[in-house]
Amino acid sequence: MVVVMRGGASGTDVDKVVKAISEVGGDAFVSRGKHQTIIGLVGDPTQFAELPLHAFPGVEDVISVSKPYKLVSTETHPRPSTVWVGDTPIGRDTVTLLAGPCAVESVEQTEAACGLAVEAGATILRGGAYKPRTSPYAFQGLGEPGLDILHGVARDLDRPFVTEVVTPADVDVVAAKADMLQIGARNMQNFQLLKEVGMAGKPVLLKRGLTATIDEWIMAAEYIAHTGNLQVVLCERGIRTYEPSTRNTLDVSAVPVAQSLTHLPVIVDPSHSGGKRELVLPLIRAGIAVGADGVIVDVHNRPETALCDGPQALVKDDMLHLRETVSRYASAGGREVATVDRTRRSGAWGRSATA
Amino acid sequence: MVVVMRGGASGTDVDKVVKAISEVGGDAFVSRGKHQTIIGLVGDPTQFAELPLHAFPGVEDVISVSKPYKLVSTETHPRPSTVWVGDTPIGRDTVTLLAGPCAVESVEQTEAACGLAVEAGATILRGGAYKPRTSPYAFQGLGEPGLDILHGVARDLDRPFVTEVVTPADVDVVAAKADMLQIGARNMQNFQLLKEVGMAGKPVLLKRGLTATIDEWIMAAEYIAHTGNLQVVLCERGIRTYEPSTRNTLDVSAVPVAQSLTHLPVIVDPSHSGGKRELVLPLIRAGIAVGADGVIVDVHNRPETALCDGPQALVKDDMLHLRETVSRYASAGGREVATVDRTRRSGAWGRSATA
Amino acid sequence: MVVVMRGGASGTDVDKVVKAISEVGGDAFVSRGKHQTIIGLVGDPTQFAELPLHAFPGVEDVISVSKPYKLVSTETHPRPSTVWVGDTPIGRDTVTLLAGPCAVESVEQTEAACGLAVEAGATILRGGAYKPRTSPYAFQGLGEPGLDILHGVARDLDRPFVTEVVTPADVDVVAAKADMLQIGARNMQNFQLLKEVGMAGKPVLLKRGLTATIDEWIMAAEYIAHTGNLQVVLCERGIRTYEPSTRNTLDVSAVPVAQSLTHLPVIVDPSHSGGKRELVLPLIRAGIAVGADGVIVDVHNRPETALCDGPQALVKDDMLHLRETVSRYASAGGREVATVDRTRRSGAWGRSATA
Amino acid sequence: MVVVMRGGASGTDVDKVVKAISEVGGDAFVSRGKHQTIIGLVGDPTQFAELPLHAFPGVEDVISVSKPYKLVSTETHPRPSTVWVGDTPIGRDTVTLLAGPCAVESVEQTEAACGLAVEAGATILRGGAYKPRTSPYAFQGLGEPGLDILHGVARDLDRPFVTEVVTPADVDVVAAKADMLQIGARNMQNFQLLKEVGMAGKPVLLKRGLTATIDEWIMAAEYIAHTGNLQVVLCERGIRTYEPSTRNTLDVSAVPVAQSLTHLPVIVDPSHSGGKRELVLPLIRAGIAVGADGVIVDVHNRPETALCDGPQALVKDDMLHLRETVSRYASAGGREVATVDRTRRSGAWGRSATA
Repeated sequence: MVVVMRGGASGTDVDKVVKAISEVGGDAFVSRGKHQTIIGLVGDPTQFAELPLHAFPGVEDVISVSKPYKLVSTETHPRPSTVWVGDTPIGRDTVTLLAGPCAVESVEQTEAACGLAVEAGATILRGGAYKPRTSPYAFQGLGEPGLDILHGVARDLDRPFVTEVVTPADVDVVAAKADMLQIGARNMQNFQLLKEVGMAGKPVLLKRGLTATIDEWIMAAEYIAHTGNLQVVLCERGIRTYEPSTRNTLDVSAVPVAQSLTHLPVIVDPSHSGGKRELVLPLIRAGIAVGADGVIVDVHNRPETALCDGPQALVKDDMLHLRETVSRYASAGGREVATVDRTRRSGAWGRSATA
Repeated sequence: MVVVMRGGASGTDVDKVVKAISEVGGDAFVSRGKHQTIIGLVGDPTQFAELPLHAFPGVEDVISVSKPYKLVSTETHPRPSTVWVGDTPIGRDTVTLLAGPCAVESVEQTEAACGLAVEAGATILRGGAYKPRTSPYAFQGLGEPGLDILHGVARDLDRPFVTEVVTPADVDVVAAKADMLQIGARNMQNFQLLKEVGMAGKPVLLKRGLTATIDEWIMAAEYIAHTGNLQVVLCERGIRTYEPSTRNTLDVSAVPVAQSLTHLPVIVDPSHSGGKRELVLPLIRAGIAVGADGVIVDVHNRPETALCDGPQALVKDDMLHLRETVSRYASAGGREVATVDRTRRSGAWGRSATA
Repeated sequence: MVVVMRGGASGTDVDKVVKAISEVGGDAFVSRGKHQTIIGLVGDPTQFAELPLHAFPGVEDVISVSKPYKLVSTETHPRPSTVWVGDTPIGRDTVTLLAGPCAVESVEQTEAACGLAVEAGATILRGGAYKPRTSPYAFQGLGEPGLDILHGVARDLDRPFVTEVVTPADVDVVAAKADMLQIGARNMQNFQLLKEVGMAGKPVLLKRGLTATIDEWIMAAEYIAHTGNLQVVLCERGIRTYEPSTRNTLDVSAVPVAQSLTHLPVIVDPSHSGGKRELVLPLIRAGIAVGADGVIVDVHNRPETALCDGPQALVKDDMLHLRETVSRYASAGGREVATVDRTRRSGAWGRSATA
Repeated sequence: MVVVMRGGASGTDVDKVVKAISEVGGDAFVSRGKHQTIIGLVGDPTQFAELPLHAFPGVEDVISVSKPYKLVSTETHPRPSTVWVGDTPIGRDTVTLLAGPCAVESVEQTEAACGLAVEAGATILRGGAYKPRTSPYAFQGLGEPGLDILHGVARDLDRPFVTEVVTPADVDVVAAKADMLQIGARNMQNFQLLKEVGMAGKPVLLKRGLTATIDEWIMAAEYIAHTGNLQVVLCERGIRTYEPSTRNTLDVSAVPVAQSLTHLPVIVDPSHSGGKRELVLPLIRAGIAVGADGVIVDVHNRPETALCDGPQALVKDDMLHLRETVSRYASAGGREVATVDRTRRSGAWGRSATA
């Protein structure tokens, strides 16, 4: 950390800062210039985090120069992690395809959409039973019956699945069936949910909030890690900007930036950011090319009847193209498409391990 | 709603849209031009909300022209509401001052900070017992003991108080003591929390999310209203923009815009947006001048020891200036500073009514 | 400036930075911690500005802690300036009203709109002869004949006027007639135009760019000041954000922030940011209340025939209200509405002086 | 266009709109609902563009449903264009590499950096002689001598080159030597510059403004096209968002969106958006994968002495990797890296043709 003093700050002001730093066990180096004095703080940043240095007399600014996260940081754990979802890995050496319907609407639709996903090569299925919706009048998901449908379909197709949890009270029931729990963009800073999902012990898919900085997103992962659960996969899904022609702006730079800051896998959601079917394949290509460890894609058998986000779902005719695209761009980067590793499966589903 | 067809859309494509509209009871008016066909949808927008028109063949765009909220809308309820918190009103005719410490840290600090608030003319106290914090290593609030401290201090000072609830499981315990429940910016789309807070029956202070549009913010209020609780006060607290010199950008235009769309009161939080003490008074002036129904302000007796947001708290020396500022700008707009109306108090605290 | 070294930076890396600093005459203070080394740079920031420290081996980040502007800075010139436009001041002690039509369309319309402006108390007239338009098919302004119309009307009304210049080639012709030259938001970083307008020697109204940071805006003023012309007035006119319900988001916080960083006057344009007539008066109130040194307002006699920005113009019926609003909110802040000071007029128009 | 009337609009209000539409030769279709009336406008959108419909009584909103550009639109010219720069094409079937130093600093540096670019496979060179800089104290480019250096080096290497023009007065001198003229992000709406560059008759590289919407960017291209010059290449270079960890956010979605709206080629600048060397190759991969028609890259022989943007330049060791990356990702998309087509060269340099 660096404390920048105001032009007119007195020697006493500087001393007070130095003293406060020492009291919490840090070292303070004072750079006294003609116009301005700067104090460099060296030590564990969590020591200083609680000091209200901004409010000290004579202080103009306090600048953080080290990252506030530890457990998920590459500084403390330089080797990239692999998160196993059932018998499928998500990690730096492979490209994992997660696919399925945005929302579970019925047995038939879930079977059809998940069947398409498997056809395209998906090794992890996805589907929403609990939907956070902007309007109280919109379809809110089938809830527990939806979870049961998805669970049944996934077991029939012999694939693990990920599904969203929207409130702490649902964590137990969802964790009992799902192989991976998703925290949606709107809940990225629902800290109680982060903690309870972390404690459920299942792998977690953590979407970036609509206007979360990369640091805030990684701090949300740190909340989960802080419960002892390091099986966290980050998911870039588009940020809110001034541009009106896409629903959100897919921030592909966030993938290599996050991969340099954290050992956690980072995947991309090209369906929700573009908001239009014709953008999904281009954004899958961009996501894999930039280095994402996987992509999560909406598919639907009959998008024109979808209860949620139909316009952006890939359809039957896209499946072959999806499979080839993932494969071709994984190869271009010298990686393989993730496949099921049966040796990882030991009787029970949902057992995962961090490399 | 307006459905815009692609240049090459066929007559059959147009007919399918018209048919789907009719089936849900709406009327469709077709404007067929040389290059482009537009279909105007007339009827109750909630009828069409569930139709996945975007995914219909030949559809280029679907544009919403009416607002998706009802209960909180000025269309269904043109007269502005007054929300009573204890015996203090928040409404269009008055300017209400809410003040207190950002976080409850101890009995002494809470007494001192709330004492300052009362000195400045605050008729509603504020303070955080449960704090949503970006870092798991930061002070998370005292929790229930903090709530008890705040409750005790508020009763001693004979003032109602508002405090934040961060997760559904805490709603009952907070609602048992607080006079108004706050939904923080990060939880604005925590829909389960909105519902449970709504059902608690107490007045609700709903902060605008960091990048919520005004429509999304009002839809969050609609979630609360949908539980039967219309005692909702909206609070503009700054939005996230590219500008780095302020923590957030206080969107003063949001006040008159929201006041034209909803009958709910709208107040402004000048402390959290600016993030610096020297901006608080100018932003209070701007907020009241633009027409806000109140302001909510951080005060602290010793900001240099504050466990949370010390740099932006007003201090003892600011109190007289705060009182005068609120009074002078309320007058400039032909309004009065809200005062306690003892006739509203009927034995019990926390009873409120919507005008 | 502070140079943050990477975790693995070597002693040689640190030495290279220190040496480079010394060679340009600065002092470097090294804070060597267990995990991280920070180098504080003390001296004139323009010395270091050209050093590509970011590209040095082992450097992680370079953080600027002092402001890059000098001539317009409160550090070098702490007392606020007053800029005189003709015989009207714009400065911290007064509130100046600038008003007139967005675009000059005809003699009749300009006379009528400027007449309304004077009726409302405007002491400086405004009007656009050269219009920067997003579309090549939109009305581009009348050009020099428009300038002549405005000049004639302003002289008849005995008021100075400000008008926009959009390209260096027009500076001379505009400066020959106008009393103040405006740089529009889209040209805020048209550096050649800044220089040529500066050299014209007339007062300059510098609008903030649509997504300019406050620092970039003040640096644009420094470009003008660098030509020897310190008669610059900054104008906040709304920034681009994700919020769709207003054309731009008026950043009222920018007024006190800019006033603390620069001695130049800062005014607000409430017409272009809101984009709707009903927002203009609330935003005028907010702008004056937050401390702006003036407001610049669109007025039109017949907005439904306006060739440009009709929807946001105030009309005849608003004039009395405008006059009263400016007066009442100036008073609330202990300031007076700026008036014409005939003693400043010395025969010729357009002579100005910086206090 | 669609005109949305207010709830309380009268029949007369509706009639006035219909009449105004008819008077400019358009057709108006009225959809009269219980709560709301919508008027669909059918005809040439440039007819209505000048009508101030927003300011008509009873009008709530005016929504544009067709695009305001014509000459560059895929509606009027569905087949993608190829722009030839010297004997190198930029178009949908190939991936073109443009590379060179950010700024021309000396003959030696320009030779070295351009030599590296050619080694990496660049068929078009780049370099800045006139630099728009945020600070008047920063290196402003060598100007005409820099242009001469670049011209000499490019001729020696037998490659065409692109360079930026920052003000109309420089257009002639730059167009006399450069093979392609660049409009920088800050000048995207410097309309006079757009016109004069267009009239110079050379191919134009048009960078997207820092916060330009895709529509505004294409409208800027329309300004150039309007002068009769259709040899325009669009360049996405990152937009300004709230995210602080990258200089700008590369908006890869803008590539397929712009390619669907305009027949012009669209390339990507991965150097300026990321602002860090380690992001350049990942963003090149993402840009080519998403479908960009080329990439423009900063290279420097000694970035630690660069006078401008050293931190983001690729260096000698990156050249082989750059060549392979462009080649591999072009192949993955079934495209070839653009090469020099000597049959296009007819004695003179800088002759271009639109397919």
